[in-house]
Amino acid sequence: MKNIVIIGATGYAGQQLVSILLKHKHIRISMIISNSHVGKLFSDVIGKFRGATDLRCSSLDDLYKKINDIDLVFLALPHGKSNKIINKLIQINKKIKIIDLGADFRLEKNSDFLKWYNFTHENTNLIKKFKYCIPELHRDRLRNSNYIANPGCYPTSILLAIAPVISNKNILIDKVICNSLSGVSGSGRNPSYSNSFCEINGSAKAYSIGEHRHLSEIDQQLKIMSKNIKTIQFTPHLIPINRGIISTITITLKNELDIDSNLKELFREFYSDDSFIKISQNEPSLNEVCNTNNCILYPYYDKRTNNIVIISIIDNLIKGAAGQAVQNMNILMNYKENTGLKFPVIFP
Amino acid sequence: MKNIVIIGATGYAGQQLVSILLKHKHIRISMIISNSHVGKLFSDVIGKFRGATDLRCSSLDDLYKKINDIDLVFLALPHGKSNKIINKLIQINKKIKIIDLGADFRLEKNSDFLKWYNFTHENTNLIKKFKYCIPELHRDRLRNSNYIANPGCYPTSILLAIAPVISNKNILIDKVICNSLSGVSGSGRNPSYSNSFCEINGSAKAYSIGEHRHLSEIDQQLKIMSKNIKTIQFTPHLIPINRGIISTITITLKNELDIDSNLKELFREFYSDDSFIKISQNEPSLNEVCNTNNCILYPYYDKRTNNIVIISIIDNLIKGAAGQAVQNMNILMNYKENTGLKFPVIFP
Amino acid sequence: MKNIVIIGATGYAGQQLVSILLKHKHIRISMIISNSHVGKLFSDVIGKFRGATDLRCSSLDDLYKKINDIDLVFLALPHGKSNKIINKLIQINKKIKIIDLGADFRLEKNSDFLKWYNFTHENTNLIKKFKYCIPELHRDRLRNSNYIANPGCYPTSILLAIAPVISNKNILIDKVICNSLSGVSGSGRNPSYSNSFCEINGSAKAYSIGEHRHLSEIDQQLKIMSKNIKTIQFTPHLIPINRGIISTITITLKNELDIDSNLKELFREFYSDDSFIKISQNEPSLNEVCNTNNCILYPYYDKRTNNIVIISIIDNLIKGAAGQAVQNMNILMNYKENTGLKFPVIFP
Amino acid sequence: MKNIVIIGATGYAGQQLVSILLKHKHIRISMIISNSHVGKLFSDVIGKFRGATDLRCSSLDDLYKKINDIDLVFLALPHGKSNKIINKLIQINKKIKIIDLGADFRLEKNSDFLKWYNFTHENTNLIKKFKYCIPELHRDRLRNSNYIANPGCYPTSILLAIAPVISNKNILIDKVICNSLSGVSGSGRNPSYSNSFCEINGSAKAYSIGEHRHLSEIDQQLKIMSKNIKTIQFTPHLIPINRGIISTITITLKNELDIDSNLKELFREFYSDDSFIKISQNEPSLNEVCNTNNCILYPYYDKRTNNIVIISIIDNLIKGAAGQAVQNMNILMNYKENTGLKFPVIFP
Repeated sequence: MKNIVIIGATGYAGQQLVSILLKHKHIRISMIISNSHVGKLFSDVIGKFRGATDLRCSSLDDLYKKINDIDLVFLALPHGKSNKIINKLIQINKKIKIIDLGADFRLEKNSDFLKWYNFTHENTNLIKKFKYCIPELHRDRLRNSNYIANPGCYPTSILLAIAPVISNKNILIDKVICNSLSGVSGSGRNPSYSNSFCEINGSAKAYSIGEHRHLSEIDQQLKIMSKNIKTIQFTPHLIPINRGIISTITITLKNELDIDSNLKELFREFYSDDSFIKISQNEPSLNEVCNTNNCILYPYYDKRTNNIVIISIIDNLIKGAAGQAVQNMNILMNYKENTGLKFPVIFP
Repeated sequence: MKNIVIIGATGYAGQQLVSILLKHKHIRISMIISNSHVGKLFSDVIGKFRGATDLRCSSLDDLYKKINDIDLVFLALPHGKSNKIINKLIQINKKIKIIDLGADFRLEKNSDFLKWYNFTHENTNLIKKFKYCIPELHRDRLRNSNYIANPGCYPTSILLAIAPVISNKNILIDKVICNSLSGVSGSGRNPSYSNSFCEINGSAKAYSIGEHRHLSEIDQQLKIMSKNIKTIQFTPHLIPINRGIISTITITLKNELDIDSNLKELFREFYSDDSFIKISQNEPSLNEVCNTNNCILYPYYDKRTNNIVIISIIDNLIKGAAGQAVQNMNILMNYKENTGLKFPVIFP
Repeated sequence: MKNIVIIGATGYAGQQLVSILLKHKHIRISMIISNSHVGKLFSDVIGKFRGATDLRCSSLDDLYKKINDIDLVFLALPHGKSNKIINKLIQINKKIKIIDLGADFRLEKNSDFLKWYNFTHENTNLIKKFKYCIPELHRDRLRNSNYIANPGCYPTSILLAIAPVISNKNILIDKVICNSLSGVSGSGRNPSYSNSFCEINGSAKAYSIGEHRHLSEIDQQLKIMSKNIKTIQFTPHLIPINRGIISTITITLKNELDIDSNLKELFREFYSDDSFIKISQNEPSLNEVCNTNNCILYPYYDKRTNNIVIISIIDNLIKGAAGQAVQNMNILMNYKENTGLKFPVIFP
Repeated sequence: MKNIVIIGATGYAGQQLVSILLKHKHIRISMIISNSHVGKLFSDVIGKFRGATDLRCSSLDDLYKKINDIDLVFLALPHGKSNKIINKLIQINKKIKIIDLGADFRLEKNSDFLKWYNFTHENTNLIKKFKYCIPELHRDRLRNSNYIANPGCYPTSILLAIAPVISNKNILIDKVICNSLSGVSGSGRNPSYSNSFCEINGSAKAYSIGEHRHLSEIDQQLKIMSKNIKTIQFTPHLIPINRGIISTITITLKNELDIDSNLKELFREFYSDDSFIKISQNEPSLNEVCNTNNCILYPYYDKRTNNIVIISIIDNLIKGAAGQAVQNMNILMNYKENTGLKFPVIFP
């Protein structure tokens, strides 16, 4: 049994992480860190956990004292908050493993953090030590690494959809246009007009067109995958559901595809070893992935327009955050990759 | 490993049952019976189960042939459908155990089935062999019995709330008024105007006032519990959520309660051995029980009115149907009562 | 054309009031007062009004300067806020008419304001000048009065349902139990955990059992209507819809009703002159009253229990707030009572 | 007062049409035709209309007898149903005006009806007489015409967004990708799994990728507007709201736009005479157009990608169906174009 700690467990991604880890057979949650609820039962802060855990919230100082007994720390904090904490953690315990669910180590250049997130790292060396990892695409990056930058929810849904197309050199990509729909939990748990019930219910909206922060990590990863794709058009939308993301990716092509080219087959082969990726025969409904760590992909080649359209759906809190973090932990720890990630079917 | 069979797995209660049983460590689902989908993969009929099971739907005839290898059969069928099938099952296999999630064996008198459900049993002997069982209230009934009539969702939420009050002889009950709110899955999966999205979303309604079928089983069980309560006023409402029931029970009293009487303490003691019943300090939100087998009770004594008000919340598909059925199975099979019923926390 | 002013137009009731008054043929909105948005276009503060009005928000000081040109002032403010403003308004303009949509003048005794709302009036004389008025029940109170305390949403739905029963001396009421379901706009527009989308969507909850503030005005009005009803049991619930209230009122009886007694007929006669009150033949759906000033009542006598059950539905922002305020204004101003209150049918 | 008739008033678009026309000062609804409800009060069929109208449903035969007293007929029927009825109507009354809200006259070629809708017209002459008309784009087509093919909801939202861009010859369009989100009323009122509450609530899905029927009319109108755009990529999605459409249109460009080019200004000028089209400064929320006849457009030029992104939102039942039909009627009848189309503001 390994000892893990969660910093920032009261947000939606953090709660999901606690939920998954409480059932994970190889690990034990040693501490839940929440500076604003120190001493309280976690299940009193988040009522849903009554009966599931009797852990109490601890402070960061409590953690620093016991850090040498800890094997791995998850952080699920707003951007700009985790980098200082991590600096301190790894100074005390050189062997500790870190998985950051926030954005603080997703980019490569300090200047990009300034541009997109309006903060800079003091310790730029640390940035390089973190590996950005969607397991199905980047498992190999984790060899000899202890630090993981867990990807954002939109990028996960989008990169998983584009990767098989890029992998086929016969498909000459022209432009990539991505429209994504996200549930409201994606905007966090803090109350505001923009997530209050009456403003959301019965409505929907596009937001942050052309300037959403997740563009930075999408662009960076696309450049690694292909020299030909510089950037994408990314338009996120908020829709009135609690959880889930649908990304609809349209790829315009420079060449016509052979009428025989079987796009679904390409996708199936690309992900043949990945149990969490499902290639669907029909347009899938979002509720097919909710409360799972799966990503369902539906690729479609439109002869009429010579475009490829791919539907990619994930649960933003699981495959888009806490589930993927646990999947990454499983790799770091040499557990079976789906350990703790096969949930009971929930519907409706 | 015991072999079980589910008849009627494509409805919402049936799906929930499959979901729970797929994770139950002591049993194996041997067959899923659906006459309208014979031969199809269950996961093609209900897409959400893709990756979770590769069982195919079988016919009733298939079941009759293999019934001697089966230990227990669950039925989740519309009322009037299960009694004939059960007659046949138990003729072939005398030792088989049966749990009927439908209404066909919940009442004691054949005339009541005619009055409330508009059908009659041919084999009236069989009615007596079935035990109506909410485990927390009726475990003892299951000794030496193989056949269980699994209670309805509304009655479960209501009877669990009233039982502790009845148990205290110092509380003289006058009248009981129950208002319940139910999610839409309670009305079944067949499409109709009354469960279509645009008619439900943004609306709510009371229905079947004074004549809801569940009144029959509530009345019958109340009579067994107390000579003083003849009937209740029961007004169910449909609200725009997928799953869950809130029952708000007001009990008017003939005597004033001692100012010191601690209602919450009475409830806590009454359910001190029952891990699925939680007594809440505050009015609970329905989402605290969704996707659990719990019943959360919030009892409140109102000095101003001399009434007791009890809030009782359950997940209609779990504690109100499939979860309770598995809990009953665990008792029949001598497993630990909560086996397979501790689910991961899901929120939001 | 009369000149009216609205103080507190950015809340949901205030917005609804602006919406109705912009279409009212006899009045003109002269000013919209919002101290936090002085100088801004109202349609920039509340985007939905773009194209509907080019009024700008003014300050209270602006109003005091022009108060002599104003015929009537509506206030839609949190409790405790309107009484001081009103004191000042009526000192400057003795003839001005006032309709307060808040709670500050709904009760008769200063001590009740302290008990239920935790504030006291300095000018207790003023309390007596305000008339609490649900038009269908209290029109006569408005003769020679210029000041109206507009009733709360829950009390409107409940009192309209009980009044016909009280009016029939052959019905001997024992106890009254009321369960109400309210949309989220009833809890106001300020963001909080308790009205954030993910906490509300898919959930529901009872709250303020036995101590909701609206109990004070319900009790007070019931005492005026009947010496026999001292109080009611009132349990409000929040459900995931934007607008609307369902009140389910159970009245236990001391005598059995004649089997011939036609409850619906009693209700129809009682409200025969009231075009906004509809007596339904069936249990109505809440969406039948949304976006109308109607109250639909469904009375039901249950022979089995000897109880009366009444379903009462209103739109909380219209008949429960702004619509009723305009109805009251129409009476004060001697306009036809339904002027400006016949809206287009909206569904779904 | 002109006499109009509505055929097919019980669907959602039909109900909306009745709602609008009941308040239109220049017309009178003479008959509501519904063969399946002949003789019934319309307000008994659609309860929401209680108190709003006491019209009864008539049969088509009733209409044929009185057709010479009728000035204009609206049809809101499933595709393939209106063309025969119209043939008969115009044979009897040569002067009658017709507005078809269905698809039966939206295309130019009989072969296209066969290809996209699987039916053919017997009277091909009639096809030519019908004018496809989004008033803001095609008013001129209505001169000397009596027959209008009212556009589909998706095409209305999309064509209004693209037209200003096409109008500017300095913008060289490469490809057009459109993702649309629609409320559930768009899929009609007939109950089915795909519009039942539990399947929709908490979910969302893309559907009919590359083959949605509305593509046919979009393509046809685009060809008329520009020789350069052959087709678009159109991916519609269903989201869990009752009404409204968001279309997100990405236009890739062949040339870079001048950094000074003011896209919003272009849109404002293009629609300077059109009161229903609003150019927004920010990304608009769908609820800003719900229950209005407006289309809100938010054009955005993304320097990073050299793409134009346009958000276009409408109420699918009003600007996307019944409201636009009345707007078209106003033009045919020489009424002011916004007569009967300025609704009270409704929010939330």
